[in-house]
Amino acid sequence: MNTETITQTLIQVRRQRPLVHNITNVVVTNFTANGLLALGASPVMAYAKEEVADMARIAGALVLNIGTLDEEKVTSMILAGKAANEAGVPVIFDPVGAGATAYRTEAAARIMNEVKVDVLRGNAAEIANVTGKQWEIKGVDAGSGAGNTRELAKEAARRGQMTTVITGEEDVIASEDSLILIHNGHPMLTKVTGTGCLLSAVIGAFCAIEQNTVLAAASAAAVYGIAAEAAMKMSGEEGPGSFQVEFLNQLSKVDARNIEAFARVETFN
Amino acid sequence: MNTETITQTLIQVRRQRPLVHNITNVVVTNFTANGLLALGASPVMAYAKEEVADMARIAGALVLNIGTLDEEKVTSMILAGKAANEAGVPVIFDPVGAGATAYRTEAAARIMNEVKVDVLRGNAAEIANVTGKQWEIKGVDAGSGAGNTRELAKEAARRGQMTTVITGEEDVIASEDSLILIHNGHPMLTKVTGTGCLLSAVIGAFCAIEQNTVLAAASAAAVYGIAAEAAMKMSGEEGPGSFQVEFLNQLSKVDARNIEAFARVETFN
Amino acid sequence: MNTETITQTLIQVRRQRPLVHNITNVVVTNFTANGLLALGASPVMAYAKEEVADMARIAGALVLNIGTLDEEKVTSMILAGKAANEAGVPVIFDPVGAGATAYRTEAAARIMNEVKVDVLRGNAAEIANVTGKQWEIKGVDAGSGAGNTRELAKEAARRGQMTTVITGEEDVIASEDSLILIHNGHPMLTKVTGTGCLLSAVIGAFCAIEQNTVLAAASAAAVYGIAAEAAMKMSGEEGPGSFQVEFLNQLSKVDARNIEAFARVETFN
Repeated sequence: MNTETITQTLIQVRRQRPLVHNITNVVVTNFTANGLLALGASPVMAYAKEEVADMARIAGALVLNIGTLDEEKVTSMILAGKAANEAGVPVIFDPVGAGATAYRTEAAARIMNEVKVDVLRGNAAEIANVTGKQWEIKGVDAGSGAGNTRELAKEAARRGQMTTVITGEEDVIASEDSLILIHNGHPMLTKVTGTGCLLSAVIGAFCAIEQNTVLAAASAAAVYGIAAEAAMKMSGEEGPGSFQVEFLNQLSKVDARNIEAFARVETFN
Repeated sequence: MNTETITQTLIQVRRQRPLVHNITNVVVTNFTANGLLALGASPVMAYAKEEVADMARIAGALVLNIGTLDEEKVTSMILAGKAANEAGVPVIFDPVGAGATAYRTEAAARIMNEVKVDVLRGNAAEIANVTGKQWEIKGVDAGSGAGNTRELAKEAARRGQMTTVITGEEDVIASEDSLILIHNGHPMLTKVTGTGCLLSAVIGAFCAIEQNTVLAAASAAAVYGIAAEAAMKMSGEEGPGSFQVEFLNQLSKVDARNIEAFARVETFN
Repeated sequence: MNTETITQTLIQVRRQRPLVHNITNVVVTNFTANGLLALGASPVMAYAKEEVADMARIAGALVLNIGTLDEEKVTSMILAGKAANEAGVPVIFDPVGAGATAYRTEAAARIMNEVKVDVLRGNAAEIANVTGKQWEIKGVDAGSGAGNTRELAKEAARRGQMTTVITGEEDVIASEDSLILIHNGHPMLTKVTGTGCLLSAVIGAFCAIEQNTVLAAASAAAVYGIAAEAAMKMSGEEGPGSFQVEFLNQLSKVDARNIEAFARVETFN
C-alpha cells in the first residue's frame, strides 16, 4: 500500500461523508461522534431494537462495540448486524474486554456466530480471546512481542475469513493473504479513553467508501496514527487533556502532505 | 425583540440558576450538562420512570430529546412531560432524527400526542417530519432554502400551538402570530456533536425564567450564536476540538456588551 | 496525616495502576474514565448483571454512583457490591442527588443496606439524607456552615462504621475516631459536571492501594484539590471549558513537589 492510496481514501471519506452507524459503549459515545465529525464522516448512534435494522441498512458502515454491553445491546447488535449483512453494509466489530469476564467472552462469540464480521479490531488479548487462542495477558496489556501479534492477526483473519486489525506498538492489519503494518501513532493515545474504540469507528468510515477492507483499515490506521503524532507535536508536554482536544483538531487536518511526509507503512503479500 | 430583552433574560438565568431537567441521548449528556453549567443554569439528568415525574415537577424546565431513544425512555419522557404539564413547567422537545427511521417518527408523534410541548426545536427535516409535511431531505441536511423554512416554522407553530424553532443558516423562531430570525452562529457548530441538543437545553433554561416562550427561545438562540462566534474568534483555525472547549468558555462569558455589539435579530409581527 | 503520606500513596497508585470498576451515571462516564487514566489508574466500566460480580472481584476498588440510576443499575450495584465485599475489594458509594426524589432516597438506602460501604462521599445534603438527618437544603447547596459539616461527617461515620467524605468549601474526611480536613480545591470545580463523581472514583484508586481508608480518601482529596488549583493557575480567566482540559492535564502531573508546597491538611484524632 502506498501513501497515495491512503490520501485518496481519506479524500473520498471527506467528500462522501459516509453515515457510520455505531452501537457502542457509554464511555466513548461522545468522543466517537466528535472524532468521526472531525475526520469528515457522519456519525449516528441508534440502539433500540425497533430501529437498528432500519438504521444499519441506510448506513455506509456498522460499528459494533461491546465495551458496556448488556442483553438488550447484544440483541440490537445482532439485529443490526444481520440487516447490514443483507444490505452489503460492512460490519466492524470491536470486542472490548473479551476475556475479562465470561459474559463478555460469550457475548462476543455469540455476535460473531450470528453476524458476518468484515473487520475485527482489538488489542492482542482481545483478538486472541475471540479467536480461541491462549494468550498471556499481563495486566491490561497483551504479552509476547510483535512477531506473535502478526501471527495472531493472520490466524484470526484465516479462521474468521475477515480482515483483522491488532493495535498496539505497531498496528497489524491482516487478511487471509496479505499483511500490512502501520508504525504511526503515539503512546499518549493510551492515556485517553476510547482511542481504540474511535479507531474502530474510523475504520468503519473508510470501509464505507473503499470495498477492499485491508486497504481501508490500513489507511484508517495510518491517518489515525499521523493525527496522533501531530497532536503530540502541538500539545507537547501539556498532558492528556490537551492531547485529546488537539487530536480532534488534527483528525480534521490530516492531509496529503502529512501522509506523504509521515506515513510509515510496511506491506507483505 | 431588542437586545435589551436578550441581556435581561440572560442576567435572570444567571441570577436564578434554574434547574433544567433533561431526558436526553447518550451522545450529548456530558456536553449538555457542561454547557448548562457554563451558561449559569443548573442541569439535572434523571431517567428512571420511578422518579422522572418528581424531578420534572421541581424543575424550571423539562427538555426531552429522542437522540438515542428506546421504549423505556419514551415511557419516562411521557411520564415526565405529563407531570411538567400539570405543574406548569415548560416542556422543550427535540425530535432528533425524526424521519430517519419509522420508529423515531412514530415515537416522536406519540410523545407529542401525550405531552403538551411548549417549544419544539429541530432542523427543517425533523420539524417537517413531526408536522406531517413532505420535505426534501438531502443527506443529513434539509433542502429548499430559507424562505420555506420560515413558512414551515409558522405552520408547525400554528398546527401545534407551540413555539417552533428551526435551526440552520438562520434560526427561525415562530409562534402562531410572530416570527423572529436570529442571524448569529457559525458553521463550526456542525462539526461538534450535540450543539443542536445543547441549544434545546439552553432554550429550556431561558423558558424557566421567561414565560413568553418566543422571547425566551429567541434570546437563547442569540446568546448561543454569539458565544459560537466568539469561540471561533478565539480558537481560529485550530479545529473542532479547540472550538468545543472555547465554546464552553464563551457560554460563561457572553454579556450585555457582546449582545449589544453582535446580536443580529429580525422581528416580524 | 503529613504530606509524605499523600505523596507515597500517589506514587503507589501510579506504580500499581489499580483497576477501578465503576458503575456510574451517564453524564460523567467519559470524564471519570479520562480522569482515572490521567491520574495513572486503570478504569473499567461494566454494568450488566451477568458480569458485574466477576469484574468487581478482579478490581482494586468498586465505585457505585447513583446519578442516573434505574432498577437494572441498582440490581447490578448490589450484585457487584456483595461480590466486592466477599473478595475484600473496597467499595466507595456516591449517593448523587439522594433526597432530590423519593426514589433516589429509597434506592440509596437499599444499596447501603445490602452492601458494606467502605467510603461514602457526597455533599452535605446527600450525606445528611442517607444518614437520616434533617438538613437544610438551599437550592443544590447544603446550608448551615462548616462546623456542622464536620459533626455530620463524624455522625455518618459512626452510624455507618465507614469513612465518610463530605466535599464542599473544605473537604471533611471522618472515621469513627479521626477527622481530617483538606483545604485544597477551587470553586471552578462546581462549573464542570462530574467533578464530585470523579473524586469518588479517585478515592477508589487510592483505596485500592492503601488499606487505611481515611488516609486513602484524604490523600485523594488533597491530590485532587491541588490539581484543581494548578489547573486554575494554568487556565486563568479562560473559563470552564479550558479548566476541564487543564484539570485532566494536572491530574497527570501532581507530584511530590506540588504536594509539599500546596497541601493544606488539618488532622484531628
